[in-house]
Amino acid sequence: MCYAILRKPEFYYHRKEERIARQFGTTNKDHPYIKMIIESGDWLVGGDLEVLRRIQWGDGLDEYRLTPNELRRKFKELGADVVFAFQLRNPIHNGHALLMTDTKRQLQERGYRKPVLLLHPLGGWIKDDDVPLPVRIQQHQAVLEEGLLDKDSTVLAIFPSPMMYAGPTEVQWHAKARMNAGANFYIVGRDPAGIAHPAGKEASLDGNLYDTTHGGRVLKMAPGLNNLEIIPFRVAAYDKRIQKMNFFDPSRKDDFEFISGTKMRTLARNGENPPNGFMAPKAWDILSGYYQNLNKSSY
Amino acid sequence: MCYAILRKPEFYYHRKEERIARQFGTTNKDHPYIKMIIESGDWLVGGDLEVLRRIQWGDGLDEYRLTPNELRRKFKELGADVVFAFQLRNPIHNGHALLMTDTKRQLQERGYRKPVLLLHPLGGWIKDDDVPLPVRIQQHQAVLEEGLLDKDSTVLAIFPSPMMYAGPTEVQWHAKARMNAGANFYIVGRDPAGIAHPAGKEASLDGNLYDTTHGGRVLKMAPGLNNLEIIPFRVAAYDKRIQKMNFFDPSRKDDFEFISGTKMRTLARNGENPPNGFMAPKAWDILSGYYQNLNKSSY
Repeated sequence: MCYAILRKPEFYYHRKEERIARQFGTTNKDHPYIKMIIESGDWLVGGDLEVLRRIQWGDGLDEYRLTPNELRRKFKELGADVVFAFQLRNPIHNGHALLMTDTKRQLQERGYRKPVLLLHPLGGWIKDDDVPLPVRIQQHQAVLEEGLLDKDSTVLAIFPSPMMYAGPTEVQWHAKARMNAGANFYIVGRDPAGIAHPAGKEASLDGNLYDTTHGGRVLKMAPGLNNLEIIPFRVAAYDKRIQKMNFFDPSRKDDFEFISGTKMRTLARNGENPPNGFMAPKAWDILSGYYQNLNKSSY
Repeated sequence: MCYAILRKPEFYYHRKEERIARQFGTTNKDHPYIKMIIESGDWLVGGDLEVLRRIQWGDGLDEYRLTPNELRRKFKELGADVVFAFQLRNPIHNGHALLMTDTKRQLQERGYRKPVLLLHPLGGWIKDDDVPLPVRIQQHQAVLEEGLLDKDSTVLAIFPSPMMYAGPTEVQWHAKARMNAGANFYIVGRDPAGIAHPAGKEASLDGNLYDTTHGGRVLKMAPGLNNLEIIPFRVAAYDKRIQKMNFFDPSRKDDFEFISGTKMRTLARNGENPPNGFMAPKAWDILSGYYQNLNKSSY
C-alpha cells in the first residue's frame, strides 16, 4: 500500500557527531537517544513528501492522533477564546492538575471567557523506564473522568514526537509545535525534556545533564515564538496540613512532602497507596496495575 | 592602574561540556580551542563592565586597533557609500586581492560610487602554525604599498577576536561583528573558520571538521544579519596561461595550479620564490623572512 511519495529526493551524509553535539550539548554515548543516533545509518534522505493516506496505528489510540488543523477545529468547536498547552510524558498527579486549573483561573482573571487546555502527552519513542503511551492515555482519561480536570474545556490528544531528552533544544520544538497547533500559552516546568547526566552524578553540579533553568529561559529568548506566552510551572507538593497537592510554600516547608517519581513507582509496584489527594484514585489504579503487571512479567 | 570596573558581578558555573558541544559541534579534546576551554577555570564571572581607559598593547600595532565607532568614522572620512568586509587570518596572496578588487567592481556596477574595503585581520589568539599578527600586518601593508589593493579605499584594522576554529558558529560572529562596525557586504569563503577534524582524516568524509558549505549557508539563514549581504568567495588559483592569479575556470582546469598553504610555507622556508604573480614581491619577502627566521630558531 502506498502511503506517500517522496519527490526530489536528496541523499546526504549523516553528520552524527555534529548533530549530536549541537542538539544535546554533549556527545556522551550513554545518553539513550544519542545511542540510537549512533546506531542509525550513515546516510539520510530528504525531499518533498506528499502523503497520500493517513497513517493508522490500529492500537485503539488513533482517535487521539490529531493534526494541527484538527486540533484548531476542536478548539473552535469548544468555543475557545484562548488555548494553553501542557506537554507531558508522565502520569498526571494532582499537582499537575492544580497547575493546569490554576493556569485556567489566571487566564480567566485576564479576561478570557473560555480557556481550553490542550493536554498533549508525547506519543513517540520514550526510554524504557517511562510509562508506555496506552497506560498513560488511560490514566489521563481517568483524571478527566474523576473531574480533576474539566472535560468540557480540555482536548486530550497525542503529540506524535519521539522523546529526545535534549533539554533546552527540545523544549523549543515542544513549544513551537504547540504554537503551530493553535496554543497561545505554554506551561513550562523545571528542567523540561531533561535527564540525569549519562556520565553519572559527579558529571555536573546537580547530577542533571542540563541547567534546570535553561529550558524556560531559552523559550523566552528564542526567535519564532513571539505568538506564544510562556507560563512558568509552579512547584507543587503534597501539603500534609490540608492532605492535598498544593503550591509549595517555603515559609512552612515542613508541611510539604515531595513525592518523587521513584517513590511513586515503588508504591505502585508494592500495591501500596500514595497519600490521599496525591492522585485521582481511578488514575492511580491504572498506574498501579501497570507496575504490578510489570513485576509479574519480570519473574 | 585601574582599567575598568565590573559592577553587579555574577559568578556562575562553567558548563564546559555543553559550551564546547554547542559551539564546536564536537567535544574532541584535541581541537586546539576546545583544549584551552577544558584547561580553563570551572567558574566564570560576568556583569556590567565600565571601561575607564583604553587598553594599549604597546606592540606598535595599536593604531590598527579601532573600535566599531572609529571604523565608522574612517569610512565616513573616506566618503564611503558602501563598505565590504574581508575577514582573514592568513597572508594575502593575489587571489585574495583579485577577489576583493572584483567585489569592488561588482559594487560599482550596482551603482555604488565609493566602495570601501574593511581589511580586517583577526588579531587575537591563533594556533601555533598560523602566521603571527605583526608579520601579517606588515605583509598586508606591503600588499597595499605595491598597489594590489587600493590604499585610498581600504581601511586596514585589527579584529580583536581570538580564532576559535568553530566553523559555522564562529562565522556568524565574524559577520555580525563587521555588520556592527558598519559593513554592508561580507565576503565569505569555503569552510570559513574551519579546521581539519582533530580525530584525523578518517573522521569525516573529506577530513574537515565542518561541511565546507555550511558556513556560507548558515549566514544566509541566521537571524539578525538582515542588514548584511553575503558575497560568496569565488575560488582563485594560479593561471599558468596568463601567469597571474585568476578565478578558476573548470573548462580549462589544466591551466590552473592550486598553491596550498603547505606548499607556500615550504617555498618560504626554503627561501624559494612562488610563481610570478602569486603574491606581491615585497609581501612575499616579509613572509619568507618570517619562515626563514623560524627555521633558524628551531635549530
